[in-house]
Amino acid sequence: MTKISKASQTEMQQYSRRDFFRKTAAYSVSALAAASVMAPVKINAEDDPAIVEEKVWGTTFGDPVTKNLYGVPSAYEHHVTRRNTKLLSSGNYYASIAMCPIHESMGIITPNGLFFSRSHGGTAQIDPNEHRLMIHGLVEKPLVLTMDELKKYPSVSRIHFIECPANGGPEWRGPQFPSIQFAKGMMSCAEWTGVYIKDILKDLGLKPKARWMLAEGADNSHMGRTIPIDKVLDDAMIVWGQNGEALRPEQGYPIRLLVPGWEGNLCVKWLNRLEFASEPFYAKEETAKYTALKPSGKAIQHFYANEVNSIITSPCPDIPWTDLKKGDIVEIEGLAWSGMGTIKGVDISFDGGKNWVEASLKGLVLPKAWTRFSFIYKYEGKPLLLSSRARDDAGHIQPSVKQEREVMGVESVYHRNGIATWEVTEKGEVNNVQVLS
Amino acid sequence: MTKISKASQTEMQQYSRRDFFRKTAAYSVSALAAASVMAPVKINAEDDPAIVEEKVWGTTFGDPVTKNLYGVPSAYEHHVTRRNTKLLSSGNYYASIAMCPIHESMGIITPNGLFFSRSHGGTAQIDPNEHRLMIHGLVEKPLVLTMDELKKYPSVSRIHFIECPANGGPEWRGPQFPSIQFAKGMMSCAEWTGVYIKDILKDLGLKPKARWMLAEGADNSHMGRTIPIDKVLDDAMIVWGQNGEALRPEQGYPIRLLVPGWEGNLCVKWLNRLEFASEPFYAKEETAKYTALKPSGKAIQHFYANEVNSIITSPCPDIPWTDLKKGDIVEIEGLAWSGMGTIKGVDISFDGGKNWVEASLKGLVLPKAWTRFSFIYKYEGKPLLLSSRARDDAGHIQPSVKQEREVMGVESVYHRNGIATWEVTEKGEVNNVQVLS
Repeated sequence: MTKISKASQTEMQQYSRRDFFRKTAAYSVSALAAASVMAPVKINAEDDPAIVEEKVWGTTFGDPVTKNLYGVPSAYEHHVTRRNTKLLSSGNYYASIAMCPIHESMGIITPNGLFFSRSHGGTAQIDPNEHRLMIHGLVEKPLVLTMDELKKYPSVSRIHFIECPANGGPEWRGPQFPSIQFAKGMMSCAEWTGVYIKDILKDLGLKPKARWMLAEGADNSHMGRTIPIDKVLDDAMIVWGQNGEALRPEQGYPIRLLVPGWEGNLCVKWLNRLEFASEPFYAKEETAKYTALKPSGKAIQHFYANEVNSIITSPCPDIPWTDLKKGDIVEIEGLAWSGMGTIKGVDISFDGGKNWVEASLKGLVLPKAWTRFSFIYKYEGKPLLLSSRARDDAGHIQPSVKQEREVMGVESVYHRNGIATWEVTEKGEVNNVQVLS
Repeated sequence: MTKISKASQTEMQQYSRRDFFRKTAAYSVSALAAASVMAPVKINAEDDPAIVEEKVWGTTFGDPVTKNLYGVPSAYEHHVTRRNTKLLSSGNYYASIAMCPIHESMGIITPNGLFFSRSHGGTAQIDPNEHRLMIHGLVEKPLVLTMDELKKYPSVSRIHFIECPANGGPEWRGPQFPSIQFAKGMMSCAEWTGVYIKDILKDLGLKPKARWMLAEGADNSHMGRTIPIDKVLDDAMIVWGQNGEALRPEQGYPIRLLVPGWEGNLCVKWLNRLEFASEPFYAKEETAKYTALKPSGKAIQHFYANEVNSIITSPCPDIPWTDLKKGDIVEIEGLAWSGMGTIKGVDISFDGGKNWVEASLKGLVLPKAWTRFSFIYKYEGKPLLLSSRARDDAGHIQPSVKQEREVMGVESVYHRNGIATWEVTEKGEVNNVQVLS
């Protein structure tokens, strides 16, 4: 448990929801005479055409139900999309990444249309009738499965995040992105449906010498990663469903590996081969890439679990506080996650990490899943250095940037979980800064 | 707790997951010599071109990440859509319903593109900048809110189903639909984000005489429904988020009412007015419609909560067992839900309701949410009358069709929760039948 100074708790008075409603007079208009039932009413709002004028959607038929039998978002939400950057891209954006607009996220489910995506050779468009999963190597009964055969295994559904280990990594040495979508958008969270590999292995029979599992994709990058057998037998899954429908092509349709809480690149997409062996495979993507260079000049190779982490999503550079007035009560919101367990708590600092107060967790709190936190705050119009610090039930706590640099230096781009800080200016603008002290 | 005869438990032996894998030899191929690491392997499958031939997606770049920044499903999933029927439609499908493909559902989240939809005047396409929410009547401080102002209230996220009370109702007198999508597809389940109305009322101040709340929509049907104040103060919400993004237009964008567990039509879409009063409003849609005619000739008017219910989704008429062989072990799966609480258990019958055995609940079990059940079964190729019967923590249990008819007759189309039955033929075909005895 984190030590929180009593002085800071007094200074950074946390307001209850009750306070929020008591003090938020800005949202009220003055009382009106009792309105006649079912008749239109004006409430000090004669100058608001949105109230007094008829709308086209109130006087004419809307779209027929036959229009979009597979639905799409409102045209007014066109700005809420994934975004890409040249950062990880070949010139043609085949090997690239699409960042999730996490500042627009709500709850803990990311809709499939906005789920972040990374590919090493473009999004394969696979015909599931022509796709097979081969499971072989150190098993008693090797298998080749059609997708129909695979889906006959009894299924399980689990809510888990997937995060690219490079999330936040480009900022290790700075400069910092002026956008949360680019700073922390290499992650999302969904309800996955599939089968535990340990259950399939009950059928196949794992040989005693099997210590590692290679997962390989059918796309043209033939992404390959090796997973230690303990994790495979713990909670690794082959999944075909995401948020109640088939995986999207950019998530590996028809099937991908899910290695809950561990590096996203281990969750091999367009999965078509699992091979069990006594030694790691040292595939291209676990030697040239996805290793972490340390100050000693040596690299960490078998580096898997995404460590406990958090980010404040509101405010953020993409959603500043420029419309707030001094004295307004506002909800600070954010996301916390740990690849090693369940979030136990999140602390908030307003002074760059000198003092901390505890936020509330809200909604579902599940292992290896996004967990949302909330803090009701009275805005004073003063400059702030706003940070969050998460703790998990495995006993981990986010390090400061200074602590992280002491261990990892500044040459790595993977597994960055140092405490992030937003600088809030007197005007309510929000800048992405690093607190190095 | 349901009485389950011991004899039937023995007859209808429930197989464990362990048994499934031990007995599912059909999915295995014979052992092969140890494969060379990282080299292609053939496993008794020289005649399967899907294994031995190169695929275009394995040898050429896939789509660039810039292609669909808001993603879409695979083209191979084109058959998974909502479907409509002339049943509730005006000739032009403005006032109509789109059924959810619940046989394709996985887990408890329905993706927004497949969430069932019912409208009374078409899908309004509302500009959120021109939309307001008025809250007035028996409150101390009436309000008019812009969408930005509304979203400043501290938010909550909750997973709940929404079900049209007519779900299954057209079958009350028969004939039965030969499709689960049409028989039970007037429901879906999502993670909703918004604000509890009780929290807004802390700010507004509810007057003591307020006993009912009118909710009215901005679409051209101006759908109006009255909700009793106890339910409003329990868990009714104004929601703007669904599965982590803005509501879709057909779900009421920019905001709808959510009345968890109660009739879907109470969850007024395109919400623009809440009025508090001492008496019900008796709006058109709660007098001419959404009342239940009883055998006495009188109708139930204030009829709200969707009762405990369940349906087997696999097998079903849309997913028969025609590919099973005698002795195969197969997972029977289904959905249970109750508008009055949390699902406590589900029983399965193979003989039209004479004998029952208990199924397992799997995944998240949440109040007023879809809950998935599972039963591992050894298929014998004999004719079956396959039924499920759910129980909730409020003490309710699904009635037989006979029991339901004794109370409600056959003239109602709302709140049908009599036990549903699939007839499974010797060939594994699945028919939708009613067991009336």
